[in-house]
Amino acid sequence: MDTAAIYHRAESEYAYLYERGHYHIRIRTKANDVQSVELLSGDPYSLDQEKWFMNGKEMKKVASTNMHDYWMIDTHEPTKRMAYGFRVIGKDGIEIFYSDQGVFPFEETFLSQMNFYFRVPYIHEIDAFRAPKWAGETVWYQIFPERFANGDPSNDPEGTLPWGSKENPSRDDFYGGDLRGVLDNMDYLEDLGINGIYFTPIFKAHSNHKYDTIDYKEIDPDFGDKALFKKVVEEAHSRGIRIMIDAVFNHVGIHSPQWLDVLENQEKSRYKDWFYIHSFPVDDVAGLSTEALENVGRVNYDTFAFTGHMPKLNTANPEVQEYLLDISTYWIKEFDIDAWRLDVANEVDHFFWKRFFKETTAIKEDLYILGEIWHSSQNWLNGDEFHAVMNYAFTDTIENYFFKKFLSPTRLVSGLNSQLMLYRQQTTEVMFNLLDSHDTPRVLTKAGHDKNLVKSAMAFLYAQPGAPCMYYGTEIGMDGGMDPDCRKCMIWDEDKQDHDMLAFTKELIQFRKMYSDILISGETEWHDVRDDEQFLGFKRKLGNRELLFFFNQDEEEAFLPLIPRGAKKVFHLNDIADGDETLLSHNGFSVFYYEDNEEERKKRLMKKRDRAKKRKVLMEAIKK
Amino acid sequence: MDTAAIYHRAESEYAYLYERGHYHIRIRTKANDVQSVELLSGDPYSLDQEKWFMNGKEMKKVASTNMHDYWMIDTHEPTKRMAYGFRVIGKDGIEIFYSDQGVFPFEETFLSQMNFYFRVPYIHEIDAFRAPKWAGETVWYQIFPERFANGDPSNDPEGTLPWGSKENPSRDDFYGGDLRGVLDNMDYLEDLGINGIYFTPIFKAHSNHKYDTIDYKEIDPDFGDKALFKKVVEEAHSRGIRIMIDAVFNHVGIHSPQWLDVLENQEKSRYKDWFYIHSFPVDDVAGLSTEALENVGRVNYDTFAFTGHMPKLNTANPEVQEYLLDISTYWIKEFDIDAWRLDVANEVDHFFWKRFFKETTAIKEDLYILGEIWHSSQNWLNGDEFHAVMNYAFTDTIENYFFKKFLSPTRLVSGLNSQLMLYRQQTTEVMFNLLDSHDTPRVLTKAGHDKNLVKSAMAFLYAQPGAPCMYYGTEIGMDGGMDPDCRKCMIWDEDKQDHDMLAFTKELIQFRKMYSDILISGETEWHDVRDDEQFLGFKRKLGNRELLFFFNQDEEEAFLPLIPRGAKKVFHLNDIADGDETLLSHNGFSVFYYEDNEEERKKRLMKKRDRAKKRKVLMEAIKK
Repeated sequence: MDTAAIYHRAESEYAYLYERGHYHIRIRTKANDVQSVELLSGDPYSLDQEKWFMNGKEMKKVASTNMHDYWMIDTHEPTKRMAYGFRVIGKDGIEIFYSDQGVFPFEETFLSQMNFYFRVPYIHEIDAFRAPKWAGETVWYQIFPERFANGDPSNDPEGTLPWGSKENPSRDDFYGGDLRGVLDNMDYLEDLGINGIYFTPIFKAHSNHKYDTIDYKEIDPDFGDKALFKKVVEEAHSRGIRIMIDAVFNHVGIHSPQWLDVLENQEKSRYKDWFYIHSFPVDDVAGLSTEALENVGRVNYDTFAFTGHMPKLNTANPEVQEYLLDISTYWIKEFDIDAWRLDVANEVDHFFWKRFFKETTAIKEDLYILGEIWHSSQNWLNGDEFHAVMNYAFTDTIENYFFKKFLSPTRLVSGLNSQLMLYRQQTTEVMFNLLDSHDTPRVLTKAGHDKNLVKSAMAFLYAQPGAPCMYYGTEIGMDGGMDPDCRKCMIWDEDKQDHDMLAFTKELIQFRKMYSDILISGETEWHDVRDDEQFLGFKRKLGNRELLFFFNQDEEEAFLPLIPRGAKKVFHLNDIADGDETLLSHNGFSVFYYEDNEEERKKRLMKKRDRAKKRKVLMEAIKK
Repeated sequence: MDTAAIYHRAESEYAYLYERGHYHIRIRTKANDVQSVELLSGDPYSLDQEKWFMNGKEMKKVASTNMHDYWMIDTHEPTKRMAYGFRVIGKDGIEIFYSDQGVFPFEETFLSQMNFYFRVPYIHEIDAFRAPKWAGETVWYQIFPERFANGDPSNDPEGTLPWGSKENPSRDDFYGGDLRGVLDNMDYLEDLGINGIYFTPIFKAHSNHKYDTIDYKEIDPDFGDKALFKKVVEEAHSRGIRIMIDAVFNHVGIHSPQWLDVLENQEKSRYKDWFYIHSFPVDDVAGLSTEALENVGRVNYDTFAFTGHMPKLNTANPEVQEYLLDISTYWIKEFDIDAWRLDVANEVDHFFWKRFFKETTAIKEDLYILGEIWHSSQNWLNGDEFHAVMNYAFTDTIENYFFKKFLSPTRLVSGLNSQLMLYRQQTTEVMFNLLDSHDTPRVLTKAGHDKNLVKSAMAFLYAQPGAPCMYYGTEIGMDGGMDPDCRKCMIWDEDKQDHDMLAFTKELIQFRKMYSDILISGETEWHDVRDDEQFLGFKRKLGNRELLFFFNQDEEEAFLPLIPRGAKKVFHLNDIADGDETLLSHNGFSVFYYEDNEEERKKRLMKKRDRAKKRKVLMEAIKK
């Protein structure tokens, strides 16, 4: 057994309170190396009397990657305190005690050492990760306001181009999209079935994407005004649609009053400590073109990436903290927004985000806080900063399998499982899953315009834990390459919309909602992963209810394995009935719903037998 | 190579800001499995242009355990942002790219993927772990006030026994020790050389150990009053001695007004939500004897361990938080204490400790916060809760080698290194290291009354990073078994004190202070660890200055290895000069101080050569 590969970490995604009475413990071992793992646990203060290490509790292998197996147990100590260690038995028969002090022989000398155990010192719900329940149940729709719909031509900026007039928009274009356009299309969104809108920035800014904020307390005049935004929120809420807006707190735009003051007054500016300025006078890049600005190179102040028009804010400055916290609470208090999406969230300090979490959730307890982080994010997801991150690492794996096709089915599963094991289960349940956004090519383009492939990948995404997000226009078959090409104007001309894709999308959203409890919290079991046939079979399971998924990415048709009797097909694409069997053709998928009523059947059987017995006794009594 | 055993975790003890300009990265591999590790790092936004993954930076193997090797590098990115991965080359020649997305072949296809890298998104000093500088430089002296000195018989509680009248005190005894006794012996403490006093609880309580608090805002009347405590602090400060007091916030005593109110008013008590009460009426254990109370078994409210006279406080209740925070700041503001030691700190919630940290350090920036935690404590030591924990896991290893003798020298080093790698370097530097306390047998008893063994173990402890603590009386050779035996009255009768031990202790403390910078921050290098000879040779090194330590625990004498020319012996025990060589006898140790002036020597040599050259040129010129 490879004992050097065993890993556990107390008070982390390896040991956490899931919900009251359910404490999850995970451990990682080398893949295919260990035959069983038991949790040895009990109240730390009763170790001597109870010798509870004698009664290990079997752990379950819940996920495997190409490198590791992960084992899990849902446990509960009535005293709310737990000392714990692991009995690990290798496939070679070697048996060890894995403890807070390392690896020891499985012998009482070591097992009876109280100080050797990992600890859950006392379960405090106040320290647990809790996300708003609605967050897992949401199907998001991302709107880039300048390009969704132009509802009010009177607020179009100077030089606005006719809607959709360019096949490939350039960086500087304006098309007049606004909040009135969103309001006018609320029926469309409701009909689509989404129940959350994620707006990229709507505050007053210079560019068309609005990530270079000028004033965080104003709606951009190109988009409308506060009264209109209020109406948008109210109208959405009345249809059960939540609203998430975008907070760009890592940096401001060079046209903000704070930066203009720095440019004007230099060292004497009262805002000079709002930024990270290396030397005076500060470089003035305001005169450059949009294209030039994006790659101005190194300037003498810290910026987002190397974009000189986005000077980084010094969030360690208490004045900046107060300024941003005021904004953070303002839009909740005054406009009743439901969620904040935090731009470049990883580059802002934890100290600030902890304050942000405390002050915003104090006003709205079920606020959802979503950070833009592309890499592993454990330190932001401990329950006192964000509820979720934009789950690119997870969805990249899906993309690498379905679109880029450089992963095998096994490596797909491995990649997804690695990501799932990075976070607590309740975090995973509210993760923000997306296949495209304003920062990536559109899904249809990634799929080489293969519409069935898009449908399969989307169905696969919607089958995973985490809330899926649809980028505006994907539902009607819009395409587009990397930014700015992925930011084309929404197609409202029904003749140019892909009605088949729209119908599919609606069905997919309804499917997600119909089975949301299984899809949010159910276990995932990969029971049929065939590398040589590009075939994927897996199960999502909650209690006795399960969804069976099958995807065929092979050019050849594939037969489905045996489906349990009583399972009913609830969703499918490209599957062909062939007598009693189902054939999945290329890009096809089938989903079955099944209730495993084994136990109820057993109970019924018992009752029947009881009745028969009684009858027999009765009959015999009558005979006598 | 065992790739499944490789481990790194971003934003943890594996990746942290040590001090400005010094970001430490560590990685763990299987022991003896890897020939080299390189850090591949650079600004994330310049990966494409600079391809910095082509220029790996060599990492150093800094610690090994029986299971793992740990590699480290002190690095710095001028842009304060860093993407990083690892090039790991196995002893079998296999070469891999270890990344945030797992293990890949060392090929540009993978190396050029920006999203594959771990990230230091932006270095924020506000998020870094910072401990007060004085904490590392302190030699603590732990006082159990009831047993240190009786300076004022007028405040002795009823039934006080004559000082030291019982060879083995029982749980209920009172001997009249008090704060006047401490004040009267301040010269003694100054002369001893310690510069920090750690008081076990001094607040009004019922028992002799005062861990069952009645009133957190009063000095226990058996010990004196606030005016007297103020004098103790002032007198200590005037001698450069810091004061740490004990906060018992996990639970209160059953004689506290809050608990009495619960007993009296039950469900109607305004304090009922201050505790975790399972049902009413609450069990009343006040009438039980002290012995019986310690093991009253399960009562119908949560307690510390299973001790019914210590009901656990509900620190999630904002009222309780305010109550305890008021106390926490009161003793700093009014009495200028320098440190808080937090009793049973692991069983109180993180949410509370984060508030505690914020509010106390806001008043006194260089306050030292020490938690009582016996197990791995990473989650309390991220910079926003505690500065250190009572380092039992570290010192247990020393005890298991020197006293219990069940570890080999190699396992001793392995145990110490495991612990060192659990925390950031700056945390390790202020850890609280102890060989005995009021909760353990005394060191002399553990050592089987072998005084030289005590001296060796203490010298070994003082040679490690972390602030050592001496338990009152250890310096004059007091012994004692497990509590209450380890709480005997301090021996003030000079005829009964061990003067040799006292002299040694003073010398040891002076040694620690003399070389404090090396002993606090120096690297540790184990260069001569001999399992078959129970011999330990190691080096602490800071810049070009080093201390060489040698310990012989074998019955046989041992020759020291070759000592560098110019090293001078600065501290020793049981070492015998044998011609030019040094022989260490059983329990002996030697410490040498050495300055490696190789570079300066080289510089001098260069100058000399330059001068000779010039002279030659000059001579030739003259000749012509």
